[in-house]
Amino acid sequence: MNLPRSKPAYGVSDALTAPDAPLQQRFNAVRAQSEHLVQALSVEDCALQSMPDASPLKWHLAHTTWFFETFVLEAAITGYQPFHAEFRSLFNSYYVGVGPRHPRPERGLLSRPSLDEILAYRRHVNGRIAALLNAGAPAWCALIELGVQHEQQHQELILTDLKHLFSRNPLAPAYAEAAPAAAHAPALQRWQALPDGIRRVGHQGEGFCFDNELPRHRVFLDAFEIATRPVSNAEYAVFMADGGYDRHELWLSEGWDVKNAQGWEAPLYWQRAGDAWRAFTLHGLRAPAADAPVCHVSFFEADAYARWAGARLPTEAEWESFAATQQVDGHFVEDGAFEPRAATDAAATQVFGDVWEWTRSAYEPYPGYRAAAGAVGEYNGKLMSNQYVLRGGSCATPRAHIRASYRNFFPAAARWQFSGIRLARA
Amino acid sequence: MNLPRSKPAYGVSDALTAPDAPLQQRFNAVRAQSEHLVQALSVEDCALQSMPDASPLKWHLAHTTWFFETFVLEAAITGYQPFHAEFRSLFNSYYVGVGPRHPRPERGLLSRPSLDEILAYRRHVNGRIAALLNAGAPAWCALIELGVQHEQQHQELILTDLKHLFSRNPLAPAYAEAAPAAAHAPALQRWQALPDGIRRVGHQGEGFCFDNELPRHRVFLDAFEIATRPVSNAEYAVFMADGGYDRHELWLSEGWDVKNAQGWEAPLYWQRAGDAWRAFTLHGLRAPAADAPVCHVSFFEADAYARWAGARLPTEAEWESFAATQQVDGHFVEDGAFEPRAATDAAATQVFGDVWEWTRSAYEPYPGYRAAAGAVGEYNGKLMSNQYVLRGGSCATPRAHIRASYRNFFPAAARWQFSGIRLARA
Amino acid sequence: MNLPRSKPAYGVSDALTAPDAPLQQRFNAVRAQSEHLVQALSVEDCALQSMPDASPLKWHLAHTTWFFETFVLEAAITGYQPFHAEFRSLFNSYYVGVGPRHPRPERGLLSRPSLDEILAYRRHVNGRIAALLNAGAPAWCALIELGVQHEQQHQELILTDLKHLFSRNPLAPAYAEAAPAAAHAPALQRWQALPDGIRRVGHQGEGFCFDNELPRHRVFLDAFEIATRPVSNAEYAVFMADGGYDRHELWLSEGWDVKNAQGWEAPLYWQRAGDAWRAFTLHGLRAPAADAPVCHVSFFEADAYARWAGARLPTEAEWESFAATQQVDGHFVEDGAFEPRAATDAAATQVFGDVWEWTRSAYEPYPGYRAAAGAVGEYNGKLMSNQYVLRGGSCATPRAHIRASYRNFFPAAARWQFSGIRLARA
Amino acid sequence: MNLPRSKPAYGVSDALTAPDAPLQQRFNAVRAQSEHLVQALSVEDCALQSMPDASPLKWHLAHTTWFFETFVLEAAITGYQPFHAEFRSLFNSYYVGVGPRHPRPERGLLSRPSLDEILAYRRHVNGRIAALLNAGAPAWCALIELGVQHEQQHQELILTDLKHLFSRNPLAPAYAEAAPAAAHAPALQRWQALPDGIRRVGHQGEGFCFDNELPRHRVFLDAFEIATRPVSNAEYAVFMADGGYDRHELWLSEGWDVKNAQGWEAPLYWQRAGDAWRAFTLHGLRAPAADAPVCHVSFFEADAYARWAGARLPTEAEWESFAATQQVDGHFVEDGAFEPRAATDAAATQVFGDVWEWTRSAYEPYPGYRAAAGAVGEYNGKLMSNQYVLRGGSCATPRAHIRASYRNFFPAAARWQFSGIRLARA
Repeated sequence: MNLPRSKPAYGVSDALTAPDAPLQQRFNAVRAQSEHLVQALSVEDCALQSMPDASPLKWHLAHTTWFFETFVLEAAITGYQPFHAEFRSLFNSYYVGVGPRHPRPERGLLSRPSLDEILAYRRHVNGRIAALLNAGAPAWCALIELGVQHEQQHQELILTDLKHLFSRNPLAPAYAEAAPAAAHAPALQRWQALPDGIRRVGHQGEGFCFDNELPRHRVFLDAFEIATRPVSNAEYAVFMADGGYDRHELWLSEGWDVKNAQGWEAPLYWQRAGDAWRAFTLHGLRAPAADAPVCHVSFFEADAYARWAGARLPTEAEWESFAATQQVDGHFVEDGAFEPRAATDAAATQVFGDVWEWTRSAYEPYPGYRAAAGAVGEYNGKLMSNQYVLRGGSCATPRAHIRASYRNFFPAAARWQFSGIRLARA
Repeated sequence: MNLPRSKPAYGVSDALTAPDAPLQQRFNAVRAQSEHLVQALSVEDCALQSMPDASPLKWHLAHTTWFFETFVLEAAITGYQPFHAEFRSLFNSYYVGVGPRHPRPERGLLSRPSLDEILAYRRHVNGRIAALLNAGAPAWCALIELGVQHEQQHQELILTDLKHLFSRNPLAPAYAEAAPAAAHAPALQRWQALPDGIRRVGHQGEGFCFDNELPRHRVFLDAFEIATRPVSNAEYAVFMADGGYDRHELWLSEGWDVKNAQGWEAPLYWQRAGDAWRAFTLHGLRAPAADAPVCHVSFFEADAYARWAGARLPTEAEWESFAATQQVDGHFVEDGAFEPRAATDAAATQVFGDVWEWTRSAYEPYPGYRAAAGAVGEYNGKLMSNQYVLRGGSCATPRAHIRASYRNFFPAAARWQFSGIRLARA
Repeated sequence: MNLPRSKPAYGVSDALTAPDAPLQQRFNAVRAQSEHLVQALSVEDCALQSMPDASPLKWHLAHTTWFFETFVLEAAITGYQPFHAEFRSLFNSYYVGVGPRHPRPERGLLSRPSLDEILAYRRHVNGRIAALLNAGAPAWCALIELGVQHEQQHQELILTDLKHLFSRNPLAPAYAEAAPAAAHAPALQRWQALPDGIRRVGHQGEGFCFDNELPRHRVFLDAFEIATRPVSNAEYAVFMADGGYDRHELWLSEGWDVKNAQGWEAPLYWQRAGDAWRAFTLHGLRAPAADAPVCHVSFFEADAYARWAGARLPTEAEWESFAATQQVDGHFVEDGAFEPRAATDAAATQVFGDVWEWTRSAYEPYPGYRAAAGAVGEYNGKLMSNQYVLRGGSCATPRAHIRASYRNFFPAAARWQFSGIRLARA
Repeated sequence: MNLPRSKPAYGVSDALTAPDAPLQQRFNAVRAQSEHLVQALSVEDCALQSMPDASPLKWHLAHTTWFFETFVLEAAITGYQPFHAEFRSLFNSYYVGVGPRHPRPERGLLSRPSLDEILAYRRHVNGRIAALLNAGAPAWCALIELGVQHEQQHQELILTDLKHLFSRNPLAPAYAEAAPAAAHAPALQRWQALPDGIRRVGHQGEGFCFDNELPRHRVFLDAFEIATRPVSNAEYAVFMADGGYDRHELWLSEGWDVKNAQGWEAPLYWQRAGDAWRAFTLHGLRAPAADAPVCHVSFFEADAYARWAGARLPTEAEWESFAATQQVDGHFVEDGAFEPRAATDAAATQVFGDVWEWTRSAYEPYPGYRAAAGAVGEYNGKLMSNQYVLRGGSCATPRAHIRASYRNFFPAAARWQFSGIRLARA
């Protein structure tokens, strides 16, 4: 089956940001892409905060800039005068080592600086970073690279946080026109078997990775099987119809309590519409596409679904061992049509680029893990408690940001990310 | 002492809105004044909500419009098509009788409708109301009058809510340039004695009043004395220096607990600046003017101050009996210079127009009180529990909205209104 | 109708504690009565705390003793050695002037001192007080009198707190055998009219009263009518059947929110039993007696019922003006049979002794009110905010503790007291 | 060094409960031991609940009995009549499959049934189980064994929950007389190195284990070193003195927030006494013994200490690989003197029996884990989220309950267990 490619859902300029492109080109492209993401939005859309976990979009635009200013410009340029003295704490997310931070739940209280001022802040810092790169300052490339990767992470958050904000508005605004639904047959779910043995897990090669992907190390895995694609909306609907949300024996105890306390009876953003369901998406309210991967489920729901299906979630080592052998070949656009990236393979296993896939693995340091020195070392390591690892990447993840060793992580009850389910079994 | 009048702090066009002006003129002027209040602000300033008690400014602009649409246009015009179907619940504040309401703490989640759309909504409704008035529809005048008064209440809230929002921003934005400080001698506080006897309390005459000001009725008052002006910042500072916030015997038990839980040690918006205090105002951070009335204190602080001073707060009947005899002759601009309205009387008693003055009276219905029929009847009566009456009016109150029988009310711990203290004694 | 008197429900020895009995006799009788109330209970029954508002019974036994020790013995006896050094803070309820207090919600964490130790504490203090009285120490009589009255208040709380504790136990324990139901015709509700005019309100005469009942003062009352008996269970059931709990227009806004948040659909302690209701009482689970006064309703429910009935709650001045003319002539035992005290009057108006009756009056100081000096002055005055006055007395109130000027007070949402409804109208 | 053995701290009759003793003997001994633990306590001590995480002691006595009645007697005896119909839900802890459960935070609201009734309940169930065992009913032995192990777990909780309750009492009651301090030299901390390779982890052999200890499986471990004894109070005091609680870079982000929110500045139960510290213990308030293992620290504190010490916590696989080679040879009595069990080895490594040792491993299922069928299957598996594994055993753990494969687990912020720290390094 050879499907025509629709244009990228959210303007991702993949070629310009490919991992092997020159750093300056990627810096420029990524910085431009962040602003592209909010181009169709109003100033008000960019200013609001819908919950403490989410941030105003303009905060993301400022914070990613703060990252470059604080970790690169302040270190590289003697006597650097910050763009604005207060921004150092206003746009510090969680780096205690940098100094005070404006409280996270209060990010939505800042009508000033305006979006325009933040865009000016971006231009200012872009210019100084460009000058640094032009001057040939290899000492700072690693930190600039980190800043680029960091900004790509926030590009996904821009979309997830916007989606949450819009979902709370009874007017149900749409971020983008609906992507055209592609006609294609649903992929059959198969089980792929992997034998037991020692595997190597963690990043390898020269390319960029975060510190939490290192060191590459050995793990022993028992033999297991893993599904060739994520669980679909249609499959998840069967679980729901079978009383999945009402059968305690399927749930972890903590999940059962959270579900009851928060009244979950479907994935986040699903609403009853008479006898059917509609899901709020970045394209507005739509009927969930049967073949699209189920999305916006928590770890607890993923775990319950797996138990119901007589399976389990994979560990992250299992996932990575499996994924390392897959091509990156396609993705679903949000809640919608399948968009193959490698047109030659219609039996795509969708490992990358549809939904983040919950693993059963708590987010812990790899054996021999060392955090970077200084405040940058707070990037990953200090978050290693009570979170679960997700693998893969979603329709909102910048294409160049996806790799087999990437470890995303969120608390078990989080649902506002594009998170789905892949099954494994013993 | 004959002081030059500074121009009104916040653009209040007193003449146009005087109570005896024609309704249509007042309607136009009041509607224009609401928009005037936000003219110097950004779209973002108007969109944010800083706490559940406060609302985004654009919500105020929409809700006051909703009031006219719902209570006047829907009733007066057969087959009236609302400007937007969703606005009926989005901008309903607390009228259960009208139908569902968007939750108050979520007013700050609405980036849509935009401020521009809300201004269009205002123009639309203005036009229909004007047509109604032109057509000579006396049946609706009472409700339009109520809507005008209602909008004036929200004009004060626009300023109090904006002040709260700006106060939460580390950039400490100023709403307006500082008013010039007027040089004048502090008014001497005197005690005015009133004898015991039966008084009449409540609104009298033909002019507009809210239902809670009626019926005019008799009360018996023991003889009492009441201060000729509110407590000043300088006087309050003595209370603070005398350990006022640390001496439990001065406080109501509930006030003591609230104070400790919230860490009060000065009026709201005061911050330590070395050994001195600065107060956040709509003109930015300033040293509190010694002779200005202390402002942004709760009922509990007012009550504690009065006890410390060997006095007490007046009851609302005492206040009204006293006030009914006073001229409306001057006011302080916010936290600042005294601006007399009646230049002939330098010993102004400042009953009206500086700060709302806490009384010791819980907000209860007058004997024989009857709420209006229908949803409009929810305006006042259903709020009569666990609130305290404030009397007078503040620097943010539209001049035409001030009268001796007016009953403002807030919970005992509220501090974000322009609320101050007047003493009484047995 | 001449009914035989059943024996007092809870062992109240009325004669011994009559207000005109000698102080020492009353002291002895009241102290004995507190212990009598817990005689049939287990040590465990006396140790638990079911909510922060309620206290363990043994805490009541200790705290009333602490009152005598702290305010009388420590003041009267030079070099007095306290029974136990820690008891001074452990059993201090809210007297900041006395020093630290063990936190109220943690009263149920004290397995030590044991009930036996507390009874020993009582004996010790009883002996010292007796010695003081024998020695003829008139200077302390007023404080001992206050202590006696204070202990009578706690006797009622012993019953209300025990009822709450038992109600939370799925075993539904009974405190006492059910009182025999008396056969009698329901009293007809009539309206008694009082003309307008100046009344005197507040305690008069030589007998004991609390400081909040003073000074006696004048109030002006409009003409009004007041019901001759409280609202019955049968009448309240009609309100419930008429959707009383679902009609927002009947409720104060705050009451509506509390009702929804807490899921009220009947008085406290009522549970559905199929199509009927049963109420948990100190005699176990019983069908509510149709003619008994409805009990365990909040101010909000009382207010809503009155509005539904086309009436209102009386002010406390109205209540007192009416009550002052009534005989104290009967009471209902808990949730049960009517027990007349003055057999000659079968049309008893039940002003006293059945349920505490919510008034519409917030609890405020009387004109000219002065709290006592020192820590004892914290008894009443500092609680005068956000509470409503109840008048009368309940089946759990010691008989000698009931008088027309008595001002009981609780927050508007409180339901665990024996609180009911009397109607008034303009 | 040959130390005299003090008598067991809490009456543990080790011989009778040894794993290889006959089941009936162990059943009898364990059941008797639970009652022995509360023998010196008052009825009130057994009735109170100090926090939702802890339970009243009498609840433990009843719940362990309920376990035998529900899972053994109800299954084994046709037409079995429960001792009391309500106990089925009153004493159900978290087994949703069994039916409704009385809410955990309300266990302290049950003054009935009395302790005496619960002891009668125990005798009743003991008799029926004994009859079953006498009748030779091998089918039920596995469940009875599970019940015995379950009761041993609750014996530890009886001590931890009592300690918490007593710690909240200003009277600081002691559970037992202080154990005599043994004079001995502190053990030197050494590092034991283990090479890399595949290890086998999980229970082996015929003896009892919980389902979460299975299946035994292979893991690959890098080479590592592990400390030969837990961190001592003296060592922990150096961390405290070095600002350990104030240096954010030592803490996990979540731990830092919890620490700040709860005001931690030392292990739980430590209180400042002038310049020194005292710790509340089951023997009363004492100075922490310098050489005793630090106790009552959370995972977050353990993790921060390890980072400060330039080390890390071991994984549970590392711990088990190390521990499997150690003798069980001694333990500390609570917060106190070292009591060797194997007198021949004074350099005991204290792997077992002093404090539970936090690992860095989240509590997850082993590869191939299968929960038991039915409600018993809720014992372990459904708790596998957001908890950390502790290994070893504490001074409060029944001796026979300790084994190398045992997986204890608690949330990262829990501190009321006897939990300490063992270091590892790469």
